[in-house]
Amino acid sequence: MTQVYNFSAGPAMIPQAVLQQAQQELMNWNNLGGSVMEVSHRGKPFIELAEQSDKDLRALYGIPDNYSILFLQGGAKGQFSAIPMNLTKKGKALYLTSGHWSKMAAIEGRKYTQVTEVDILDSQSEKTAVTELDFENVAEQYDYVHYCPNETISGVEIFDVPKVGNGVLVADMSSTILSRQIDISKFGVIYAGAQKNLGPSGITIVIIRNDLISTAMPNTPQVWDYAVQQKADSMINTPPTFAWYLCSLVFKHLLALGGVAEVEKQNIAKAQKLYDFIDQSKLFSNVVSPQNRSRMNVTFVTGNPELDTKFVAEALENNLQALKGHKVLGGMRASIYNAMPIEGIDALIGFMKEFEERYG
Amino acid sequence: MTQVYNFSAGPAMIPQAVLQQAQQELMNWNNLGGSVMEVSHRGKPFIELAEQSDKDLRALYGIPDNYSILFLQGGAKGQFSAIPMNLTKKGKALYLTSGHWSKMAAIEGRKYTQVTEVDILDSQSEKTAVTELDFENVAEQYDYVHYCPNETISGVEIFDVPKVGNGVLVADMSSTILSRQIDISKFGVIYAGAQKNLGPSGITIVIIRNDLISTAMPNTPQVWDYAVQQKADSMINTPPTFAWYLCSLVFKHLLALGGVAEVEKQNIAKAQKLYDFIDQSKLFSNVVSPQNRSRMNVTFVTGNPELDTKFVAEALENNLQALKGHKVLGGMRASIYNAMPIEGIDALIGFMKEFEERYG
Repeated sequence: MTQVYNFSAGPAMIPQAVLQQAQQELMNWNNLGGSVMEVSHRGKPFIELAEQSDKDLRALYGIPDNYSILFLQGGAKGQFSAIPMNLTKKGKALYLTSGHWSKMAAIEGRKYTQVTEVDILDSQSEKTAVTELDFENVAEQYDYVHYCPNETISGVEIFDVPKVGNGVLVADMSSTILSRQIDISKFGVIYAGAQKNLGPSGITIVIIRNDLISTAMPNTPQVWDYAVQQKADSMINTPPTFAWYLCSLVFKHLLALGGVAEVEKQNIAKAQKLYDFIDQSKLFSNVVSPQNRSRMNVTFVTGNPELDTKFVAEALENNLQALKGHKVLGGMRASIYNAMPIEGIDALIGFMKEFEERYG
Repeated sequence: MTQVYNFSAGPAMIPQAVLQQAQQELMNWNNLGGSVMEVSHRGKPFIELAEQSDKDLRALYGIPDNYSILFLQGGAKGQFSAIPMNLTKKGKALYLTSGHWSKMAAIEGRKYTQVTEVDILDSQSEKTAVTELDFENVAEQYDYVHYCPNETISGVEIFDVPKVGNGVLVADMSSTILSRQIDISKFGVIYAGAQKNLGPSGITIVIIRNDLISTAMPNTPQVWDYAVQQKADSMINTPPTFAWYLCSLVFKHLLALGGVAEVEKQNIAKAQKLYDFIDQSKLFSNVVSPQNRSRMNVTFVTGNPELDTKFVAEALENNLQALKGHKVLGGMRASIYNAMPIEGIDALIGFMKEFEERYG
C-alpha cells in the first residue's frame, strides 16, 4: 500500500496502531463474538470500557479529582450552545476572539447570554499575534471567560493561559487537547470535538470542575444538561459507543508512548522542523508571529494564489493529502496533529523543496 | 469463532456483511490509503458518500422529493428537544403516549411548548393494546401530533398510522425505521437513532417535509436548527463520518437484499415464529395483544422473577446474549432487529424449549 500522509484539519489522522487494533477486533471484541458496535452500553463490558477511558484520560492529562469528564454528542459547535445554557447565572459572559472559531462561539453565545467580545489579536503587530491576556480584574463580573487556544483555520495558537483570577475560564480545545501539557486546574471547563487528537468525529469531551455543574437554563436539552449527564455517567441516552471505544484506544496508545509530555516533545519537533523550513524558504512564507504559531495547524502561502492551487494539486499527486487552506483564508494549511508522524513532515518538506526548485 | 446471537435492544446487531466490508477497508477506504475516519467531510470522496446515502435511503424507503433527510447527532432523545424547538408556532402539541419513550418525549416537550398528553393504551383490554387513533378533528389545533410506533421497552408496536387529517404527524421511529414499509407522505417528521436498524449509535436521522422547515425558536442550538442543517447538507459542523459511512453500507446491503418489502417479510416471519412458540408454551407468556405485538422487541416472562433471572443467565452461557428485560419491566426481551437472522430465532426457541423441559 502506498504511504500517504493526510494533513486534514479534521477528521484527522488516527494512530496506525489504533486503527490496526480496531480492524483486528472489529468483528470480535473482548471475545464476545460480536463487534463493540453491537453491544449494549448498559452491559458490563462497555461499562468497563467507559470507566477505564475515564481513568486513562485522567492519568494522561492530569485531571484532578474535582473534575468530571463527560462524553457527549454534537461536536464543539454543540458546546457553543451548551456552555452558556449550563453556566449562565449572572447573565454575562466574556468572549476573547482570535479568529473564526472563537468568533463563532461568541455568536452562538449571544442566543443565551449577554456577550462582551474582546478581540485579542494585536493590531500593532506586523505578523498575526495575540495580546497579553490579563483579565484578572474583570473576570469575576462574568459567568465565564471563553477562548480558543488554537484557531485551526489561521494557525494561531495561544500558549499562555489567560489570567482570570477567581473567574471561570472556558476553553474550546478541539485542536489543543492532548497535544501539550495543560494545568487543568486553571480551567473551569475544557471541551473538544474528538476528530483531531482524540479519535473519530461524533464524540465530544467536556472536562468540567464539579462545582460548576448546577442547574442549567430551563430550555437546556436534556442530553446537554451537564448535571443530568454527569449523574448518568454520560449515558442519559445511548452514547456513540464505537467512537468512545476508539478514544479509549487512543488514550492507551498515548499512555504507552510516554504520555502527553512525550507527545508534546514530538509535536514541538515536528512543528519546528516545518516552520524552520518555511522561514528559510524563498517561495513559502508564514504570517503568524513565532510566539503564536500553532503546533497543530501550520499555514503558509506562496503569495500567488494560482501557485498555491498548483501546489495543493501536485502535493496530492505525491500522496500528500488535504493541504488546501480553509476557504476563508486560501493558501495552504498542514494540520499535523498527534497522529502525524515525523516522516509525514519530512515528506512534506521534501516536496516543498522540490516545488520551490521548479517554481521558486 | 463461536456463533453468538445478540438480542440487545440497541446498540443492536449490524449485518455481518456490512461489518466484514468495514473491517476489510478500515485502513484503506476508497483507495485513498487511509481510513474513512481520517478524511475530511468536505472532501470529494466523503461528499459523494453523503450524497449517495441520501439517494439510497430515498430509494429504500420511498421518500418523496418534498422531504429532506438530515444526518444529525444527539440521538432520538436529542430530537425530543429539537422537534418542539423547530416546529413550535402555535405553542401547543399533542403527545400520544403508549409507554416509556413516548412519555419521555412528552416530558421533554413540556420544556418548549404546551403539551397535551393522551394515553392511547386501551384500559379495557386484558392484554396490552392500543386504542383506535383518530385525531382528525383535533390535530390542526396543534403544531404537531407526536407518537412512538414502537415502544422498545414493553414491546408494543402500532401498525396503523394515526389519523391526523391536515395536522402534522411526528414519529419517533428509532425501533421502526426500515423494518417495514411506511407511507412517508402521511408524516411531517420521522426521526430515529441509528443504533437499531440503521447502523452504530452516534448518528440520528431526521426525515422532514420541506414546508415544515422554517424559523426555529431563538434558543435552538445551531447544530439542531433544521433550516441551518438542511442548507448545509447536515454539515454545519463535522458530522459523525464513520457512523454515516456504516449507515451508507447498511442502506446498500438492504437494497441488495431486495429492499424494505423483503426485509419486512423476513421480520414478519421471524417475529411470528417466536410469538407462536411463546403462545403454545406452558412456561413462557407474552402480555401484549396480538395486533400490537412488536416485530422488533419480543417481551416474555415465566411469571417467576427468579426463573427469569436464571433463564437470562443460562441463555448467556449458550451464546444468546442480552435477553434481560428492561429494568422497569423485568422479565425477558428479545430484540430482533433487521440484522438478526432467522437462525438466531431458531437458536432462541431451541434453548427456550430445553429450558421449559427442565423448569416448566
